[in-house]
Amino acid sequence: MLTPTPFPKSFASDNHAGVHPAVLSAVVDANTGDAPAYGGDSWTRAMEDVFRAEFGAGATVYPMFNGTGANVVGLGLTLRSYDAVLCPATAHINTSECGAAERLLGAKLVPLPTENGKITVDGIRGELSALGNVQRSQPRVISISQATECGTCYTADEIAELAEFAHARGLFLHVDGARLANAAAWLDCSMRALTTDAGVDLFSFGGTKNGAMGAEALVILNPELDAPALFLRKQGMQLASKMRYVSAQLTALLTGGLWRENATHANAMAHRLSDGVAGLPGVSLRYPVQSNSVFPVLPEKAIAELQQRYLFHVWDADENVVRWVTSFDTTAEHVDTFVSDIRLAVHGASSGA
Amino acid sequence: MLTPTPFPKSFASDNHAGVHPAVLSAVVDANTGDAPAYGGDSWTRAMEDVFRAEFGAGATVYPMFNGTGANVVGLGLTLRSYDAVLCPATAHINTSECGAAERLLGAKLVPLPTENGKITVDGIRGELSALGNVQRSQPRVISISQATECGTCYTADEIAELAEFAHARGLFLHVDGARLANAAAWLDCSMRALTTDAGVDLFSFGGTKNGAMGAEALVILNPELDAPALFLRKQGMQLASKMRYVSAQLTALLTGGLWRENATHANAMAHRLSDGVAGLPGVSLRYPVQSNSVFPVLPEKAIAELQQRYLFHVWDADENVVRWVTSFDTTAEHVDTFVSDIRLAVHGASSGA
Amino acid sequence: MLTPTPFPKSFASDNHAGVHPAVLSAVVDANTGDAPAYGGDSWTRAMEDVFRAEFGAGATVYPMFNGTGANVVGLGLTLRSYDAVLCPATAHINTSECGAAERLLGAKLVPLPTENGKITVDGIRGELSALGNVQRSQPRVISISQATECGTCYTADEIAELAEFAHARGLFLHVDGARLANAAAWLDCSMRALTTDAGVDLFSFGGTKNGAMGAEALVILNPELDAPALFLRKQGMQLASKMRYVSAQLTALLTGGLWRENATHANAMAHRLSDGVAGLPGVSLRYPVQSNSVFPVLPEKAIAELQQRYLFHVWDADENVVRWVTSFDTTAEHVDTFVSDIRLAVHGASSGA
Amino acid sequence: MLTPTPFPKSFASDNHAGVHPAVLSAVVDANTGDAPAYGGDSWTRAMEDVFRAEFGAGATVYPMFNGTGANVVGLGLTLRSYDAVLCPATAHINTSECGAAERLLGAKLVPLPTENGKITVDGIRGELSALGNVQRSQPRVISISQATECGTCYTADEIAELAEFAHARGLFLHVDGARLANAAAWLDCSMRALTTDAGVDLFSFGGTKNGAMGAEALVILNPELDAPALFLRKQGMQLASKMRYVSAQLTALLTGGLWRENATHANAMAHRLSDGVAGLPGVSLRYPVQSNSVFPVLPEKAIAELQQRYLFHVWDADENVVRWVTSFDTTAEHVDTFVSDIRLAVHGASSGA
Repeated sequence: MLTPTPFPKSFASDNHAGVHPAVLSAVVDANTGDAPAYGGDSWTRAMEDVFRAEFGAGATVYPMFNGTGANVVGLGLTLRSYDAVLCPATAHINTSECGAAERLLGAKLVPLPTENGKITVDGIRGELSALGNVQRSQPRVISISQATECGTCYTADEIAELAEFAHARGLFLHVDGARLANAAAWLDCSMRALTTDAGVDLFSFGGTKNGAMGAEALVILNPELDAPALFLRKQGMQLASKMRYVSAQLTALLTGGLWRENATHANAMAHRLSDGVAGLPGVSLRYPVQSNSVFPVLPEKAIAELQQRYLFHVWDADENVVRWVTSFDTTAEHVDTFVSDIRLAVHGASSGA
Repeated sequence: MLTPTPFPKSFASDNHAGVHPAVLSAVVDANTGDAPAYGGDSWTRAMEDVFRAEFGAGATVYPMFNGTGANVVGLGLTLRSYDAVLCPATAHINTSECGAAERLLGAKLVPLPTENGKITVDGIRGELSALGNVQRSQPRVISISQATECGTCYTADEIAELAEFAHARGLFLHVDGARLANAAAWLDCSMRALTTDAGVDLFSFGGTKNGAMGAEALVILNPELDAPALFLRKQGMQLASKMRYVSAQLTALLTGGLWRENATHANAMAHRLSDGVAGLPGVSLRYPVQSNSVFPVLPEKAIAELQQRYLFHVWDADENVVRWVTSFDTTAEHVDTFVSDIRLAVHGASSGA
Repeated sequence: MLTPTPFPKSFASDNHAGVHPAVLSAVVDANTGDAPAYGGDSWTRAMEDVFRAEFGAGATVYPMFNGTGANVVGLGLTLRSYDAVLCPATAHINTSECGAAERLLGAKLVPLPTENGKITVDGIRGELSALGNVQRSQPRVISISQATECGTCYTADEIAELAEFAHARGLFLHVDGARLANAAAWLDCSMRALTTDAGVDLFSFGGTKNGAMGAEALVILNPELDAPALFLRKQGMQLASKMRYVSAQLTALLTGGLWRENATHANAMAHRLSDGVAGLPGVSLRYPVQSNSVFPVLPEKAIAELQQRYLFHVWDADENVVRWVTSFDTTAEHVDTFVSDIRLAVHGASSGA
Repeated sequence: MLTPTPFPKSFASDNHAGVHPAVLSAVVDANTGDAPAYGGDSWTRAMEDVFRAEFGAGATVYPMFNGTGANVVGLGLTLRSYDAVLCPATAHINTSECGAAERLLGAKLVPLPTENGKITVDGIRGELSALGNVQRSQPRVISISQATECGTCYTADEIAELAEFAHARGLFLHVDGARLANAAAWLDCSMRALTTDAGVDLFSFGGTKNGAMGAEALVILNPELDAPALFLRKQGMQLASKMRYVSAQLTALLTGGLWRENATHANAMAHRLSDGVAGLPGVSLRYPVQSNSVFPVLPEKAIAELQQRYLFHVWDADENVVRWVTSFDTTAEHVDTFVSDIRLAVHGASSGA
């Protein structure tokens, strides 16, 4: 019999988690009377300082409400009206933003086939024959996700190769870094190594999935893209009036290595989970586990049984792939209980019970 | 000599204020472990209940990040690709959203002259000759602000007249209610009397300027507009993943009459301020004070002197009109100190000092 | 009794006219077997030559299908995503293109009050306070019509003043020249004097209303705007595949002064018409006659009676203003017959018959 | 040695051809003085009659300037702001309209893999999991090309299957019929059998590639899509003022079976061409020849040599596929001369000469 408590911990998404206490404290502490609106406050100044410390003195940072907002405003800075974004078919901008890039930017997305959510220079090259052809949208920016939507990571070298390739052809490299922290934690490097130092032009920095309440940011590393950012953020409905409460969250994450601590822990829980199900009959991993998500193939009956008491998404219904995501507040006990229930469900499925 | 402390209280905007303690507590209290994302949480259910209690059982409500977001998503629900919004020339959507309606919705805004920020049926009628003319954008929705950007209010009867006029011609009535609470407080009626009962089709509900941290909402009263709202909110980059922290703020405002208490206080402070400057030489009011803002004409020298120590905006530089806004946390002492400094500045200006 | 023949000649618009024989011949003559598509043909090369001869060696020209297309593609070249077009409230782009600029470009149009359809530097200045303000659409281009929609003309000096004013503030000057030929004919100067030499950055050249079958053009005089024109024309659905048949029309108009001959004649007919009705009881002119249209105020009864047998539009129903437009093929006899019928109708109206 | 005359006949595109004499005559004959603009003329009425005769009494037809215009306006009638178009990856709207659908409609295009340019119900089914998912663009319309960009044709049954599948799920079926005439000629059926009778909701009718000067049309068969068509055509910059000259072309094509005569001839020439190169060493066909284009694989050296004297496009540079298109005025002699030169070039290439 499975554990009776309903939904002891969600494995559906890292945005089912609450707010890390240090982030919440920072929000509460920001409530000290008046402050200028729209980013003219001292918390936003401090936040800019910690981002520059992390990503280099040339980085400019714009708090955003959510990842879609950060992606759309960021990509908007790179695009002319007739431009295309080359991205993995699996990209969040392509599959999970309800067509915001097309609708709000008028951009063409060119989805590329991926290996484990990653694209390579070779996969991009063929699309560049469009350059200069007036009948075709002009490739202008390559957008990748780090970590990818499949939970995998690009190495710093892989990113640098994409950036070099892009720049040599007049293109930009954009990164959807909703889980950049998890990638840096898994690769055991700085976030700077994966962005500034790798030649990335601009990226979305994700805070919400890593312990914030609701705080993302657009970070611009290529200064030639910076000029219209204030206008596009405002027009893009991402300008917070009481910005200090967003900035304070970002600062908290970048202070004392909290971002890494949270991400490292979430990653470790994902590995504990994938280790826990390794070798079970009928269970295999669709993608390697390189951050805080696990994509196992499970027996169909086991999926149905587990979903009665655990929150998680089916990733590929045809092939019985599900997605499990861990977060900063997933505990070893959460995982172990889940693993134990998975084992029961899988064995039950395989025994025909 | 003016009071030395710099910026003792901002009169620039009600979004310079902090968060009301009850709202902040609600946010903190929402941090109890996991909750489904994107509005599938119990705080959002509770928030929907309080909105229905306030605005009627037929109201649907969608939390939004900011007022521009609420306005754009709301108007988007009313518009076909070739439609126009009829709005006061002074409307926030026309003057202060960086062209979001045009850019993100492709909508034409038709700015109408106003009296004290308000439009009437007579001012609208002339535009309706466009109806059916294929060369012209089709008027589809009338959008008004309540309270207006000039701090004035439409009475319930005035709104009902606009709604009736609109509906008789197949148009909708939209209200930008960033300061709806202030209007209801000043008119001493329910918010429902100014919206549901007056025939409004949909409106933006403002929380942030009335003591929230960052919480607005789109409220739909005409059910035929509701169907695509979830898609437009997501595409419009206004879907909060950890929505509970936004919903909790809205619930706090609508609980125990906090919205009215905050708004009534802010309004009272605006009146205290306008009373305090009444009769000063060279000082007059551009608009009647009907909510929480005051638009005085001041001697140019007095403006310059006061801006050295107080935050407030110049509204009309050619005519020396400034805007002072009070908020839930403006105190009588704040006002009295400000008035005292205004008197000094105005007398200094008039004496040629 | 009025002349019995129904609709002997339309005074509704110059696009009710047919095609000038020389233009039609040019189209027929272009039908000589194969030619490369999309402008790679020798007729398009020839057309480019005649435009450069007319407007200067730095002019680039792009045939377009219609005036809306030329205006939208042209303005699109000047605008960033957060920009506004400052234009007369009477502008065709504002009143008669079904919101194309807002929808297809995402642009904000800022309609300015006019005198006889014309705007001045003084009327524009107030809008420039938006520059640099992140809440507001950024004025980027001034767009005027020449001749205006009221049939009046800007002098070369007036255009130069607008251009200088625009350039000094980083703005561009765009001209909707659907009736540029009529303006040049009335002002007795070259089209170049009103465009290239006056500092215009780009303009729409109108052929259709001046004897073509369907041929307009975007002409770019400021080379910094030229680069993306081919892409915007294609994306803007204005790229003719068998372009030679459009180019040939434009060449015909610019050959042997046909454009001036047609426009001068149409203008003369408008003056003959306005002269013919001068002094009639209850008849006055709303705007001075400076090109090929006449805007008389008529007795309401006379309007109704005349519209039974003549095609023309009511311009302002509240004030009984109508619009009469003449064209290259309007004859003196057409006008005289019309005048005679107008006299009968007006006298009938004034006698209460 | 190859035939010396340069470019005796283009095989690059059917829009390199001139205008069929009967179409040109119709244009010339339409030039009989005044006619109301914007489609209020008798030529447009007559054109509507012939379209209803061809496609059924319920068909409404809107002349358009070009195929991109017809496609964009047509698709725009089917789409809400958050909708997606499911189309073959090879579709003209996806590859050859410079992102117009994304930019002007804000639509997401979902490119599907094809077999010879055709998609099937099975290839579409997987995309429908997006229906109802607020994170994803909503599939709303299936768009196919007939003939396809690969020169192949859907049978009437294949179209009916797609239509049935679409309608059962609340989707529409759109056809880009730039070469609909060629398809009907090849399939030896009426155009109605491939559209009205097969359940197509709306389609672009191509005239230009089949002997017109510049005349396409949007034909709406599903009356629920018709209402906003006049507005979208105007806003979409596709409203011809002197429409009679476009309508007359369309009427000419649909009179006396000219459309079929032209298409049948062009198709026959394509087959003569493909027959002529069959069996040559190193030559094979990428796609079956089912209309007026041929896609052979050629030796790289032969391509280079032939392009020195013949106009045609390389379709796939990596695999040495080229595209040859025939038209209504391609003669047997043109083809035979070309074949003879192809033989020389291919043999030269294979002999290493």
